[in-house]
Amino acid sequence: MEERVFEEELKKKSAAVEQVIRRFLPEDDGGYAKKIREAMCYSMEAGGKRIRPLLMYESYHLFGGESAIVEPFMAAIEMIHTHSLIHDDLPAIDNDDLRRGKPTVHIVYGEAAALLAGDALLNYAYETALQSFLYIYGREDFQEIGERIAEALRTMSNKTGIRGMLAGQSVDVENEKSGHLSIDRDMLDYIYEYKTSKLIEAPLQIGAILAGADKSDQLCMDDLGKRIGLAFQIQDDILDVTGDERELGKPVRSDERNEKTTYVTLLGIEGARQKVETLTEQAAGLLETIPGDTEFLIHLVKKLAARTK
Amino acid sequence: MEERVFEEELKKKSAAVEQVIRRFLPEDDGGYAKKIREAMCYSMEAGGKRIRPLLMYESYHLFGGESAIVEPFMAAIEMIHTHSLIHDDLPAIDNDDLRRGKPTVHIVYGEAAALLAGDALLNYAYETALQSFLYIYGREDFQEIGERIAEALRTMSNKTGIRGMLAGQSVDVENEKSGHLSIDRDMLDYIYEYKTSKLIEAPLQIGAILAGADKSDQLCMDDLGKRIGLAFQIQDDILDVTGDERELGKPVRSDERNEKTTYVTLLGIEGARQKVETLTEQAAGLLETIPGDTEFLIHLVKKLAARTK
Repeated sequence: MEERVFEEELKKKSAAVEQVIRRFLPEDDGGYAKKIREAMCYSMEAGGKRIRPLLMYESYHLFGGESAIVEPFMAAIEMIHTHSLIHDDLPAIDNDDLRRGKPTVHIVYGEAAALLAGDALLNYAYETALQSFLYIYGREDFQEIGERIAEALRTMSNKTGIRGMLAGQSVDVENEKSGHLSIDRDMLDYIYEYKTSKLIEAPLQIGAILAGADKSDQLCMDDLGKRIGLAFQIQDDILDVTGDERELGKPVRSDERNEKTTYVTLLGIEGARQKVETLTEQAAGLLETIPGDTEFLIHLVKKLAARTK
Repeated sequence: MEERVFEEELKKKSAAVEQVIRRFLPEDDGGYAKKIREAMCYSMEAGGKRIRPLLMYESYHLFGGESAIVEPFMAAIEMIHTHSLIHDDLPAIDNDDLRRGKPTVHIVYGEAAALLAGDALLNYAYETALQSFLYIYGREDFQEIGERIAEALRTMSNKTGIRGMLAGQSVDVENEKSGHLSIDRDMLDYIYEYKTSKLIEAPLQIGAILAGADKSDQLCMDDLGKRIGLAFQIQDDILDVTGDERELGKPVRSDERNEKTTYVTLLGIEGARQKVETLTEQAAGLLETIPGDTEFLIHLVKKLAARTK
């Protein structure tokens, strides 16, 4: 696929994803609770690459999915991701004032509102994804599609929770507070796999589940997500050293300041780059085993690995 | 129902509810993320009246429910409640050191861990409630029961989120930060209805939905929850003035110190007591319209209104 064709397609697909996300944001109900809704929407509309819903959409269509039931899930996975950013930025964790070049939620709305808006986004992710059932009530294929939706929800909760992203966050934060004394390669892999990969595995697997892909294809998507997530996180380590502050929209060299153990401190810049390359090749290799048009996805995976922001 | 018989039955039922809750708590998976699980379990095992799962159980059985699908939901509603307590106690909101006579989660585990443990409990509530689908996969009545489970989940998310508890919390906190200047009776009713009643309506309605009760009975349970919740919260206002610190397990007269508008400041102690009584009578009246054995529930509602802790 030519670079120009890929970029055009990416632009088109990203716009479609953006529309889906916006459609599922909560509307003003005229009640007293305006501020929490505003804080939720502020964070959801602050940009971001929308990688997770895009991957879900691609996976769903790769396995033949054609209905709108994937859409509430696309919005939901972005809500979960955004929830984690809001809480991560709070003074109790990373104490970041800036995210994607904009003031973080607690800077704009205060700490209490940011805490509650994060909770509300996590909860609203479920409220939103559960809407997918409304599409199939009373339908003849309720059992078949209903079981898929239930499994997709179970995957979403599992990948988010204490066997998923929140486990990784928790171990990461614990190390942070204790000065990163005990981090070795195993633990770093654990943190990256849980903190980052789980929420990349989730959309890829949910897309496959909703489309009715068989178990082995679901597992292949899971494996793909693990590698993409790891590459993505190591690239983050690299960009923290080599990146441009303005382009990234956040301060660089924060890992060094915080004396953080990263893939760069463990393997050096070149070693880390090599690792990203290997993981990306493995991810592309996995995609090549799947029948169907994976050209765009392969290109996307490579683009993510080469990202500069 | 004699007091002695009621107390015996309450004891028996509470023990059964406790067992259900404990059975659904996350087990140690041997991974690095020990602390977040410990913090979750610490807060879940710190006692509490388990009113919400008990009300769900009663509602489910009142409408003829007999299966175990209600159990994951019973545990889930208590997890959501506990999640809100952990986050409420954080320095960014109420900054409370003591809850039910024990140090709060952030005092024991630190602020970052308490934040993440609260998130994890909210998420685990969904992970747990979603297990109910496992009971019916492949069964002939999947469509009927599956739709009930989906509706129960939708109710849970709606009552918890920005059209439920979190809306109430948000408005409450916003007023707190602005010195309670603008609270009138309407807004206080809104806060109490959302902050407290929504999470009492939820278990009563979920019980009815899962049992297959018809729409009018579901709405009756909703109305019941609204009144019980309001009575419960006004009783809280009263106990903050008249209660015993040791019995309550938390400091009294905190509303006065924080110059908070409450039913006691609006109506005086006697007026507030009168309101609790009226609401309790209305709640009992609603229960009397429902066929079936509501004696225990009526007694429970009255006991809640007369509570001293």
